[in-house]
Amino acid sequence: MDKILKNHSKCRIVVDAMGGDFAPHNAVLGSLDAFNETDIDLFLIGDREQILEVINTNNKNFDPTKIIHTTEIISMSEHPTEAFKKKKDSSIVKGASLIKDKKADALVSAGNTGAMSVASILGIGRIQGISRPTLTAPLPNEKDSYTFLSDVGAFVDSKPQHLLDYAHLSKVYIEEVVGIKNPKVGLLNIGEEKDKGKTLTFETSKLMENSNLNYVGNVEGKDILKGSVDLVICDGFIGNIILKFTESIIPFLKSSFKNYSEKGFINKLKIAPLKLPSFKSAFKESLDKANPDKVGGLPLLGVDGISIIGHGSSSVLAIKNMVLQANKMHQNNLIQKMKDSISKLSNIN
Amino acid sequence: MDKILKNHSKCRIVVDAMGGDFAPHNAVLGSLDAFNETDIDLFLIGDREQILEVINTNNKNFDPTKIIHTTEIISMSEHPTEAFKKKKDSSIVKGASLIKDKKADALVSAGNTGAMSVASILGIGRIQGISRPTLTAPLPNEKDSYTFLSDVGAFVDSKPQHLLDYAHLSKVYIEEVVGIKNPKVGLLNIGEEKDKGKTLTFETSKLMENSNLNYVGNVEGKDILKGSVDLVICDGFIGNIILKFTESIIPFLKSSFKNYSEKGFINKLKIAPLKLPSFKSAFKESLDKANPDKVGGLPLLGVDGISIIGHGSSSVLAIKNMVLQANKMHQNNLIQKMKDSISKLSNIN
Repeated sequence: MDKILKNHSKCRIVVDAMGGDFAPHNAVLGSLDAFNETDIDLFLIGDREQILEVINTNNKNFDPTKIIHTTEIISMSEHPTEAFKKKKDSSIVKGASLIKDKKADALVSAGNTGAMSVASILGIGRIQGISRPTLTAPLPNEKDSYTFLSDVGAFVDSKPQHLLDYAHLSKVYIEEVVGIKNPKVGLLNIGEEKDKGKTLTFETSKLMENSNLNYVGNVEGKDILKGSVDLVICDGFIGNIILKFTESIIPFLKSSFKNYSEKGFINKLKIAPLKLPSFKSAFKESLDKANPDKVGGLPLLGVDGISIIGHGSSSVLAIKNMVLQANKMHQNNLIQKMKDSISKLSNIN
Repeated sequence: MDKILKNHSKCRIVVDAMGGDFAPHNAVLGSLDAFNETDIDLFLIGDREQILEVINTNNKNFDPTKIIHTTEIISMSEHPTEAFKKKKDSSIVKGASLIKDKKADALVSAGNTGAMSVASILGIGRIQGISRPTLTAPLPNEKDSYTFLSDVGAFVDSKPQHLLDYAHLSKVYIEEVVGIKNPKVGLLNIGEEKDKGKTLTFETSKLMENSNLNYVGNVEGKDILKGSVDLVICDGFIGNIILKFTESIIPFLKSSFKNYSEKGFINKLKIAPLKLPSFKSAFKESLDKANPDKVGGLPLLGVDGISIIGHGSSSVLAIKNMVLQANKMHQNNLIQKMKDSISKLSNIN
């Protein structure tokens, strides 16, 4: 483990090799793709033998001293808090402790989302002054950019102060990592009018209005894809549902075209251009931002270290992009900037 | 008004001529299109002069004794309950009282959604045994059919019993009007597992399990477009956000293709087939079910009469389809069947 302590300038990224439906295969190969493309200090955590088997079977090279062996595995359906308490020698829990002990900068996992959240929050710890961390997701928008949605499921019951914290944390992320200065913030609601909504939205809106955020008021479901604002704030229950709904748009489109073409010869002819390779690639590239693999994983903002949580079904490309994202967050010194920003808020209040 | 009492066999439909952003134009012309296509007893309610002007300007014929004159207008942004209390001579409030007094069977409006809901619930009244009515929306799915979503915004804070009622009401609608027997019902949640969710979903799930519904358990955001179930039950706050999000998918696609083609000559060439008239129509027809005009408006289920609420931006076609839908509900004797079904439930409990 001493090796971990040696290299401080590069981002020290620990990837959970056991996380995800296709672990360790996708986790290992995706990490190595990122490692070969950019200058990072990579560590693979999990069952050493299984990791080595993926490396050898795929004729890859990786310094075996950078494999951190663990003996326990947290399954996808395991109860997060119980798993965190019991499985201290699992890749997720041990990975989080390495960040906590400043032996690494970032933890990346496509494993059990709940367990990753709990391990990050309890294991790594929160940034001081933050009531709750948040998972922030980039959704594609009409302006050929992203609308960020926070929270998308780190917590299912939120209070006004939590929603305000989500906005502050995501704001720093958007400014520093994405590069949009003073992002426009909207509160997800059932109408734009001030009197629309429920107790949670009324009270959150008051907090937002009195903050230093670039708060524009209520936004509706249609404003996400429209890109009316840069950041949409909502309760994690709704955010998670919208995130998964968004991921189902492209499969829905494909099925719709298929169903149409199967309705008769004329339809087949009319929709034939869809089959042209050039058009297929144009279609795919047009909707590239809606591809979950492109995004890779989501940052859990508000913990005192970089924590990236991926989809259980993460592809090799998704894992690679998660690792690259962790590196970008480190290069931008995001955690320190987030701490500075939050500490300024505490001084104001 | 005597004329209203005469014809009982046909569906007596009252259309709010003053409702919607393009009233009275779209409301009047859409209603007349439906009237000319099917055998209904149509009444237009609103400012007589304005209604006549639309009829005359567009060279249409309509029996002027079937125009019900009202002097007040409820604006789109007016507070629903206040408007209902104060504006007794508005098209919406007077229309609802005609249903209540059994002088008409159906009220159709693209006006203030909140005011239409309040007027329907308080003015027409609820079906006995129902804690709350619900707005149920058909969303397109991969199976070339619809997934129904209930509630989509009649109420923003729901309790478990409300969600159970939404399911029972929507079930009868889906069986009788859409023709899907014993529809599969799912509860919208952040995961399929039983331990996922929050207090509202845990308690609702227990009620659903002990009901006679074809309840399959939790479903996720992705299951709506996928069509995993026929009916998805959720709180009106979430449902309204998803409904509006869904309506923004097609504009998002169009913008994405446009943005792509503007990025260079090669892109323009690759995506050129999109401009072919035959492909354009195929594209449109493939996604026909996602077109809000096709649906027209949404039924408010659980009130003791037919009440169809449309989008403020309803087109002539949308209004026409709302009127046709009201007629279909009447032809299927939906309200009586709903009453029978609900009364059986009360007898069981």
